[in-house]
Amino acid sequence: MGYICTMKFLAEIEILPKKGLLDPQGKAVLHGMSQIGLPQVSEVRVGKFITLELDAASEAEAHEAADTASKKLLANLIMESYSIRISQG
Amino acid sequence: MGYICTMKFLAEIEILPKKGLLDPQGKAVLHGMSQIGLPQVSEVRVGKFITLELDAASEAEAHEAADTASKKLLANLIMESYSIRISQG
Repeated sequence: MGYICTMKFLAEIEILPKKGLLDPQGKAVLHGMSQIGLPQVSEVRVGKFITLELDAASEAEAHEAADTASKKLLANLIMESYSIRISQG
Repeated sequence: MGYICTMKFLAEIEILPKKGLLDPQGKAVLHGMSQIGLPQVSEVRVGKFITLELDAASEAEAHEAADTASKKLLANLIMESYSIRISQG
């Protein structure tokens, strides 16, 4: 039996509604931009930002776990796309 | 009267509940991680990811507009912290 060394990683996952899909929350926030004096904002999209702290043997393994989490639990792949950043935590 | 040249910028804003504050959504997602076979995840925090497309004369001006939007409309500064990335869109 060998030793298994793991390190702490931080996964930062950004999830957005896919382009072309209705984003009513984004539309509502866009409307608010004019009201607070920012008419130069022309489009707003609202999604989720999720951070995970996890143990993994390598950055690649941490990325794979974050990818699994995104696909199975965090993102709705029919309506949303996601991107993952991994750093040592 | 002079010309005013502006460029398109993309502002990406990440908003998270502040450390130490209760994040019930994060706790619920953490519970789900074990159920999908990812017990190596030890902490989850759930926040918002918002993108803005906007016109500005410079990256600094785009950042200032995104900062104003975050402070006045997008983030609840008592409970949340935010960070902004600007790129040319």
